Amino acid sequence: MRDLLAELRIRLEHVADLQDTAALLGWDQATYMPAGGSQTRGRQLATIARLAHEALVDPAIGSLLDRLEPELESIDPDSDEARLISVTRFDYDRATQVPAHFLAEFEKHASHGYQLWVQARPADDFALVADHLERTVELSRRYSSFFSGYQHVADALIDESDRGMTVARLRPLFRELRARLLPLVDATTAGGGQAPGNAGSAREVADGSPLRACYPEAAQIAFGEEVIRAFGFDFRRGRQDRSGHPFATALGDGDVRITTRVREADLSEALFSSLHEAGHGMYEQGIDPGLHGTPLAGGTSAGVHESQSRLWENVVGRSYAFWRHYFPLLRERFPDQLTEVSLEAFYAAVNLVSRSLIRTDADELTYNLHVMIRFELECELLEGTLAVADLADAWRERYRSDLGVDSGGDSDGVLQDMHWFSGLVGGAFQGYTIGNILSAQFYAAASKAQPDLPEQMASGSFGGLHAWLKENIWRHGRKYTPDELLLRATGSEMSIEPYLAYLSDKYRRLYPAG
Amino acid sequence: MRDLLAELRIRLEHVADLQDTAALLGWDQATYMPAGGSQTRGRQLATIARLAHEALVDPAIGSLLDRLEPELESIDPDSDEARLISVTRFDYDRATQVPAHFLAEFEKHASHGYQLWVQARPADDFALVADHLERTVELSRRYSSFFSGYQHVADALIDESDRGMTVARLRPLFRELRARLLPLVDATTAGGGQAPGNAGSAREVADGSPLRACYPEAAQIAFGEEVIRAFGFDFRRGRQDRSGHPFATALGDGDVRITTRVREADLSEALFSSLHEAGHGMYEQGIDPGLHGTPLAGGTSAGVHESQSRLWENVVGRSYAFWRHYFPLLRERFPDQLTEVSLEAFYAAVNLVSRSLIRTDADELTYNLHVMIRFELECELLEGTLAVADLADAWRERYRSDLGVDSGGDSDGVLQDMHWFSGLVGGAFQGYTIGNILSAQFYAAASKAQPDLPEQMASGSFGGLHAWLKENIWRHGRKYTPDELLLRATGSEMSIEPYLAYLSDKYRRLYPAG
Repeated sequence: MRDLLAELRIRLEHVADLQDTAALLGWDQATYMPAGGSQTRGRQLATIARLAHEALVDPAIGSLLDRLEPELESIDPDSDEARLISVTRFDYDRATQVPAHFLAEFEKHASHGYQLWVQARPADDFALVADHLERTVELSRRYSSFFSGYQHVADALIDESDRGMTVARLRPLFRELRARLLPLVDATTAGGGQAPGNAGSAREVADGSPLRACYPEAAQIAFGEEVIRAFGFDFRRGRQDRSGHPFATALGDGDVRITTRVREADLSEALFSSLHEAGHGMYEQGIDPGLHGTPLAGGTSAGVHESQSRLWENVVGRSYAFWRHYFPLLRERFPDQLTEVSLEAFYAAVNLVSRSLIRTDADELTYNLHVMIRFELECELLEGTLAVADLADAWRERYRSDLGVDSGGDSDGVLQDMHWFSGLVGGAFQGYTIGNILSAQFYAAASKAQPDLPEQMASGSFGGLHAWLKENIWRHGRKYTPDELLLRATGSEMSIEPYLAYLSDKYRRLYPAG
Repeated sequence: MRDLLAELRIRLEHVADLQDTAALLGWDQATYMPAGGSQTRGRQLATIARLAHEALVDPAIGSLLDRLEPELESIDPDSDEARLISVTRFDYDRATQVPAHFLAEFEKHASHGYQLWVQARPADDFALVADHLERTVELSRRYSSFFSGYQHVADALIDESDRGMTVARLRPLFRELRARLLPLVDATTAGGGQAPGNAGSAREVADGSPLRACYPEAAQIAFGEEVIRAFGFDFRRGRQDRSGHPFATALGDGDVRITTRVREADLSEALFSSLHEAGHGMYEQGIDPGLHGTPLAGGTSAGVHESQSRLWENVVGRSYAFWRHYFPLLRERFPDQLTEVSLEAFYAAVNLVSRSLIRTDADELTYNLHVMIRFELECELLEGTLAVADLADAWRERYRSDLGVDSGGDSDGVLQDMHWFSGLVGGAFQGYTIGNILSAQFYAAASKAQPDLPEQMASGSFGGLHAWLKENIWRHGRKYTPDELLLRATGSEMSIEPYLAYLSDKYRRLYPAG
């Protein structure tokens, strides 16, 4: 068994080398690559991705698994070895069930779709991408059909990013979450208006103006890096650069990269992007070194990954305790911009609730309303209960009913996210809301273990939280399924109660009734 | 034939994708990679290099060549197609003649050697690397033995980087060059002293002090980039970053990267590194786009590549015409540092001749003396006429006789360059001096076509020179051998006369006799 495992590890390390190399090609494309490199880079990425796929579906891996699986009965089912075998089996079966020609076709289709979307969005022209999206829905259904044992056509896609999640579990959960979020949003947004303009004095504090002075780029980056260093992001094993869309990527053991984007006229852009991506990054940096070079390195699901980014961005980075420590330091850095601003006004500004059209600009309260609209629409597209021709109108209709806002065109409507135009339809969005839900569950469990977390944060100390997350979540990589991990870390199954309790407590204080 | 060529091109494009990806892994390692990534990066580099090698030695390429070669008689021998077939044959035969297990062994050996050298150099401890170097000499001889048809054991290694060059051609050439350089060096260095300290007033101008003020990093980078942009380095298809050792690398069509290194206390470091690497970079950027994705992309030899970097660094960048235009601009940028400095004093400072121990710091006149010592020593090591045990002493002895300087320890002696400790012994150094020789030959030919080149430069215009080099050298990539290319571009074979004429004219003006 030792020998078989050693052989399996060598093959998996080869797969990991190729995947990590593809990640570097992607990172460089988004950060430093000159424009002239784009065509060749596309080909390089496709070449390396194909080689990584070929290395994973090598029948030698299947045969090693066949020989190792009978041994599973004799070893601890929670050992790294047992989990390595079962997770590799999951990935191997997934990869071998998809024909290579389908992958090549989809790769081309998706890359063409991205080109179309880049033109369609600024031109507000959904018609330009409609036929393409029709075909994407078809291809997504076909992709789903390669896998058996799923109830709903979206389940195969959801299972790939959020293992164990299904439409049957998520629909009622999201329905209840929506029903209980709407009154909270109403209570904070002055009876449904788009901005809390004509409200009383406590509400007037909550406008975004303190964030909208001119904040020089270099000083913004320096401040953000000081904060994430204090969080525990390790710059000897990672770095931060700038890119058009912030992201985090792991290039192998000891090299985790995050990016941010700066708007000098808006302090929140770079700072909260940094805190968010550092959450993803610390997860990757916290994985047990022994799991590297195997499929157990990496987060266990999109939702759990997002829970870490949202925890550091929101639960920590938009908390009053955090700003008690950091606002005085921020004001020292930007005296001209902030001398007249109080801690309370600033805290209100970073937590301003507003009914808006754009998901990525949304506050904590309304964000999930955006996500759940997309989740419902992609399920319906896959089911065939919604036609692509009716999608843009359906989008507008849901925004009116859930968020009370009217999007005139499609740029700020159905065209705003690239997901459906550069990838599959299905499985792309549920992770964002799962992440929010779990961020509160994990934080509640950490607070139970360390009741003084707010005091720690108010003194600029994040080591306690970092250690709890590393011990209970990060180090395990993909060893446990999301459900197993959650149960081990918190003692509970997934529940929206801690999240709703967190939100209502926070926003009742920020926007007291009357 | 169309179909066979198309199939060959697809296979070669795959090789190129892998080679370019390896180049990105290397670039990132030297520029942005955090320290924590180094171990995994080594493995990734080895993985991609192995795949590139495997793709090149695929018997399918051999069989395509076998079927294409009979067609060569019916097509223009100077066509891209004919040259593609013959250059691919050269690379394919070379690659297939080396056993894969040898490459893997050497890869490990070289990477271990680099680790040893990194410790040995600061510790001034040649003994630490001596055994390793002994083995490198052995492995280099074995590598050479894989190829037949060469006269001298070093020829197989030289032919790999400077095709067509041999020990039999280079030894007499270098011997004559040394003999004619020594009197020039004597004439400029006040009778053999290490610095021109106690010389007359014309000589006193020639000290390095104007370069040794404090020049802030960002302003140095900005000035250098302004110059190389004027040279014609295309930032839409390339970029410049910082690294420990400056280098240039091509990552595929439209993406050529160069690096520089800044010393705030020495203006010449970053500037001349930028000009040098931009010379390499413009060569790569100037290659006919139709050659990309094949072995014809890339410079034709180490020597021709170096001729382009030395041409822009020295023949242009240390010329009086260049500084007539740029010194006033430089003084505007750095008024505090340069107000008191005259154009003449500055020009003399960037051309200061000094008998020194370190190759990379050497001026134009003494540089080749450093290189030729290394060339001779590596030939003798390979021949077995010099033992590794005697190498450090032999080094000291040659430095005394050729340069008149005494290196106490080995840090600044035999340990100063990494070449022998991280690669083969043999074929590593001749290209530097060939490059200097050719830089003058190419420049002389360009001047013949455009006699007003100095006036163009003095008005800040480099388009004429750029166009001549692109037309006569760059666009051809590896289509022609170095000898063919030189003959086509200049009408002559390699000769040291233009180089010696250039040097003696320049230095007789700078250091007039008496």
